Amino acid sequence: MPASYENHRAQLKAILKGWGMPEANAETTAEILSWADLHGVDSHGISMIPGYDGLRRSGRAKMDVAPTIVRETPVSALVDGGGGLGHVPAHFAMGVAIKKAKTVGMAAAVVKHSAHFGAAGYYSLMAAKEGLIGMSCTSASGIQVAPTFGKQARLGTDPWSFAAPSADGTPFLLDMATTTVAAGRIRNKANEGLPTPDGWVLDAEGKPSNDPLVAKEKGGFLTSLGGSPENSSYKGYGLAVMVNILASCLSGATLITDPMHTKKPVGMDIGHFFMAIDPDIFRETGDFQQDVQSFMTALRATTPVDPAQPVMVAGDPQWKNAAKRMETGIPVGPGLLNQVRQIAQAAAAPWLLD
Amino acid sequence: MPASYENHRAQLKAILKGWGMPEANAETTAEILSWADLHGVDSHGISMIPGYDGLRRSGRAKMDVAPTIVRETPVSALVDGGGGLGHVPAHFAMGVAIKKAKTVGMAAAVVKHSAHFGAAGYYSLMAAKEGLIGMSCTSASGIQVAPTFGKQARLGTDPWSFAAPSADGTPFLLDMATTTVAAGRIRNKANEGLPTPDGWVLDAEGKPSNDPLVAKEKGGFLTSLGGSPENSSYKGYGLAVMVNILASCLSGATLITDPMHTKKPVGMDIGHFFMAIDPDIFRETGDFQQDVQSFMTALRATTPVDPAQPVMVAGDPQWKNAAKRMETGIPVGPGLLNQVRQIAQAAAAPWLLD
Repeated sequence: MPASYENHRAQLKAILKGWGMPEANAETTAEILSWADLHGVDSHGISMIPGYDGLRRSGRAKMDVAPTIVRETPVSALVDGGGGLGHVPAHFAMGVAIKKAKTVGMAAAVVKHSAHFGAAGYYSLMAAKEGLIGMSCTSASGIQVAPTFGKQARLGTDPWSFAAPSADGTPFLLDMATTTVAAGRIRNKANEGLPTPDGWVLDAEGKPSNDPLVAKEKGGFLTSLGGSPENSSYKGYGLAVMVNILASCLSGATLITDPMHTKKPVGMDIGHFFMAIDPDIFRETGDFQQDVQSFMTALRATTPVDPAQPVMVAGDPQWKNAAKRMETGIPVGPGLLNQVRQIAQAAAAPWLLD
Repeated sequence: MPASYENHRAQLKAILKGWGMPEANAETTAEILSWADLHGVDSHGISMIPGYDGLRRSGRAKMDVAPTIVRETPVSALVDGGGGLGHVPAHFAMGVAIKKAKTVGMAAAVVKHSAHFGAAGYYSLMAAKEGLIGMSCTSASGIQVAPTFGKQARLGTDPWSFAAPSADGTPFLLDMATTTVAAGRIRNKANEGLPTPDGWVLDAEGKPSNDPLVAKEKGGFLTSLGGSPENSSYKGYGLAVMVNILASCLSGATLITDPMHTKKPVGMDIGHFFMAIDPDIFRETGDFQQDVQSFMTALRATTPVDPAQPVMVAGDPQWKNAAKRMETGIPVGPGLLNQVRQIAQAAAAPWLLD
């Protein structure tokens, strides 16, 4: 039976503490990872634990670090992540952006010297919960995307996220990789023995392929959103570049195109970007949230192709998943569960997921 | 023979003045329209003249208006476009955002009570030319996109643009409709008697189609970037919603989902959004521009699939077009040229394009 959200979250925290992460950092990191699992963003929750364990063991992500502001103005902060996992500095940086935006009207914070920060949507949502517009993005750690017309990996999934508060309390929450699909969906096709649809992957020569093994095992690539030049993959490619300009060029983190990026002997140097905007600098209090609600209500009321599949707005699948999983627990596949159990044992953490 | 850029621009200005637009407004509007034609953005230059003439004749866009700031803070401005074409208020609003960003570090300006503003990229580029990051977007005027899983038009091409300065003087410039393709590319297929590729259009039932006439003439729809639910059209759809939240919910303009939007008896009420960020609030002067240049240089050096088609970054096609057209003039098809000639005659404007 799936473990409850509370146990799931406690398990993650116990492992992180077992890795030597201080109490407060473990609390924040477990909160963000379990948020992803609760909301159905399975690629960014407990499934990251084996990868994070690898980063920790190889010394590429420290467990006992605190983010510091190294430069700031009333509307901005540059944060040094200290070479740890990204969740704590990302949470800290968005917190700084929110605080400044509440004073000045808008603010941005960027992070350098960081690593994978989990689900980008979590941080945008922090702003929306405070009545602000939130934006967040990060350079990816895996380099697996060839730019349009190219046959060489230069970019990653480089996600973009945007959230806005709504009067009814259900925010708009867009959280998207700038690739057509994430690697996980391709892996699922391979596991099922199915071909990938047109537009998902390219082979090592940069030609379209339907082989789910081509992108990872055979030297091929993920496609940028759009999928092919004919279907405007330059847009997904352009968005990935935008994400890297905001996250890495603004923060001074290592560029994703720098081949040292994955070879840096100690620590990682990924960049993140966060922004918060107070709508009240433009509108009377509450008017923006009312318009967001009207807009989302109108979109949800669009006549559906199939009445069994109503039109949603970004975020709706996540709220639905969270409501369901809060009731029925958070499912974790047996293979992953076994891996995590071994990692928990090795970290001398209690086991809470049976 | 195509007219020179100077004549092309002078022709546009003469028509706008013939329509009763004040000198300064005509200068700005002609500058922005001819920028689009010079840079190969043919859908947003002189080809808009017949449509603008229709808006003018029907009283839906006034010619003699001045934008005004109706609310502001050190980091923000809300601009009333006055019910005219969008170019002048958009140019004004981005100018305000740039000025404030140079003082405070970042700023945003939104416009309501406006109409079509031309190419979004022009405004982002204004910021990049001043050494700032620029963002701009606008609600669309045409409603022709069904949200993912829907079969009812709710959204438009709702473009997003982002620009960043580079040390070598050639900025990064992303300017993209959030649909898979713009209506013009579908029209081109129809003109050539060719089917549209998979993912471009949906029929009136919301099913995928390859009929280039289906979206416009047969009650169908353009697709959101991604093209199908399987290929993540929710991402293009989500970006379109983000664009409308920034452009219309923040400014208080009429929502694109409000059916009165196209029926408003007098004037239009489209919203726009502009933002400028000074990278020097995060980095030492020049470091950001150096990193943007390194990043773009690395991307352009990606091994190409076809050596005859090198990898580009967003903006490169525009700079190439501008260099060529500055030499050889700006081509305008005979049908459009005739339409514009008649409009010029009716406006008692001199004819400069022969």
